[in-house]
Amino acid sequence: MANFALFLSSQKKLMIKQETAYTEKQLLDAQQTLKSYIHQTPVLHSRLLDERCGSRLFFKCENFQRAGAFKMRGAMHKVLSLTQEERGKGVATHSSGNFGQALALSAKIMNIPATIVMPSDAPQVKKDAVAAYGARIIESEPNPQSREETLAEFLKTSGAVECHPYNDQQVILGNSTAAQELFAQQELDDIIAPVGGGGLISGTALASKFFSPTTSIYGVEPMGADDAFRSIRDGKIYPSLKPQTIADGLRTALGDLTYDVISKNVKEILLVSDHEIFAAMKLIWERMKIIVESSSAITLAAVLKYPEIFKGRRIGLILSGGNVDLQKYFG
Amino acid sequence: MANFALFLSSQKKLMIKQETAYTEKQLLDAQQTLKSYIHQTPVLHSRLLDERCGSRLFFKCENFQRAGAFKMRGAMHKVLSLTQEERGKGVATHSSGNFGQALALSAKIMNIPATIVMPSDAPQVKKDAVAAYGARIIESEPNPQSREETLAEFLKTSGAVECHPYNDQQVILGNSTAAQELFAQQELDDIIAPVGGGGLISGTALASKFFSPTTSIYGVEPMGADDAFRSIRDGKIYPSLKPQTIADGLRTALGDLTYDVISKNVKEILLVSDHEIFAAMKLIWERMKIIVESSSAITLAAVLKYPEIFKGRRIGLILSGGNVDLQKYFG
Repeated sequence: MANFALFLSSQKKLMIKQETAYTEKQLLDAQQTLKSYIHQTPVLHSRLLDERCGSRLFFKCENFQRAGAFKMRGAMHKVLSLTQEERGKGVATHSSGNFGQALALSAKIMNIPATIVMPSDAPQVKKDAVAAYGARIIESEPNPQSREETLAEFLKTSGAVECHPYNDQQVILGNSTAAQELFAQQELDDIIAPVGGGGLISGTALASKFFSPTTSIYGVEPMGADDAFRSIRDGKIYPSLKPQTIADGLRTALGDLTYDVISKNVKEILLVSDHEIFAAMKLIWERMKIIVESSSAITLAAVLKYPEIFKGRRIGLILSGGNVDLQKYFG
Repeated sequence: MANFALFLSSQKKLMIKQETAYTEKQLLDAQQTLKSYIHQTPVLHSRLLDERCGSRLFFKCENFQRAGAFKMRGAMHKVLSLTQEERGKGVATHSSGNFGQALALSAKIMNIPATIVMPSDAPQVKKDAVAAYGARIIESEPNPQSREETLAEFLKTSGAVECHPYNDQQVILGNSTAAQELFAQQELDDIIAPVGGGGLISGTALASKFFSPTTSIYGVEPMGADDAFRSIRDGKIYPSLKPQTIADGLRTALGDLTYDVISKNVKEILLVSDHEIFAAMKLIWERMKIIVESSSAITLAAVLKYPEIFKGRRIGLILSGGNVDLQKYFG
């Protein structure tokens, strides 16, 4: 059995390797296809933060994206790529965060059923958001294994199409449209994106490869969830074991598709501490008057931490999302 | 003495009446003059809020303005209007809020001294912001009379130029540039601005008069600080006595210059409750992912409260500022 599994796995890898030959046309098509379904998000500046960093910062505001995060680009592109028959069966994923909301909204827009497996301990505010988009929620035990098993069970009985939050070519192509827009808006020396499962940095890297090849691509990861950093360094995918970070969107491990794109295109994965993330988040809220998640603020934290890399340069920062629980403020 | 004072006062009024004959050229000049000193702020949309209101909303984001509020436009324009000699003596105002910060930053940009009289009970975060721009702070007792006396005393000894936060033609002309930009960005059926001392709504009304005369102009005021509503209704300026509202930027009374512009150009002043302001503020933070003050959110509160006026229309909402104390969130 073990050998057979190995064989299947290497077969799968071969197939996947072929899939990962992304073309410029695929990226352009993704942008064209998505155009009327997503927001072309603005790019904001801050004189004060420019002065603080000694660089010119261009913040791509995916926190203003529909459903509050860049995830909408990948989810919507995935749904649009489905055949009529597949759409009839609906889509499903497991998610405790932004991808669940994005898939729920994408499905609603196309008027197809969506099912989101959520851990029973997911915050009520996130469950409410998914439910508000009309998706069905199935609760799992609050651990990764139960989430996967619950989803597998549902997929088997329903025939719904599984939509992986990041390790999916259609999702990565969708994600690439954020950086495509940014490059059309602004010339950049560097571009920085957060790294969780690697879906955003993969899309960003592909956009850069085709449309701004002189731009250096950096990923940023929390020190307490540095699996991608170690994976790229050691040439193999590490799981994300017991991640410890406030950046709850960045706790997942790379997939083989995202690993592939990152290892070929990303210049470096930088690490920052939770303390640095928190300070950067406060700075963005206070100085730019926009609400970003800690997972977004990690990009500014990197610029502040590594002046030897970024000083004097024009830097694009992808602010991935803005879905935070505001109860703490509004009570 | 009383008669003499009355005579002076009516003389002053006559002078003022002449001053209030604003011209299209003055407004255009203000925009040209200010251009390189302020941010041309973006206009944001929200599909979700559009659906909620049954209107098309165009949010002019003055919360992204330098120093965090539209006040920068008026303050900077005032400073730029001064003669070399006046600049040498510096500027002064009394303020517990955004105008103090804006004047401090404007003076810093022009490298002239600024003095801000602040009540001793002003929040430390506001004092820090003014001090960070290099202005001198003089503390007064925490009441309007002491603020005015302290400022008058300082003006007498220093010869500095008094900059009134709103009842000043140069300030009003500066403020007009926010709506000027908005009209260049978007055709509008209605435009809404908050009403405190009336400086923003006056600038907005003048921009509309010259550059979008078919647009209806609405002011919004908190029910607990409805002095402008009553002033316009009764044809005389009421003081703002014991205002009770969370919208701390909207507690001031009109001045004669702002009263004049408003009474001639504004279609209606609408009233909303603090509860409605708070709900609108929460909605903007949660759905638009931007940080606005309660004084800004009042514009959306009006759209939500008066569907009979606003349904089906294209509405510009001036989000006046985003200076809130985030300690509650970041602890």
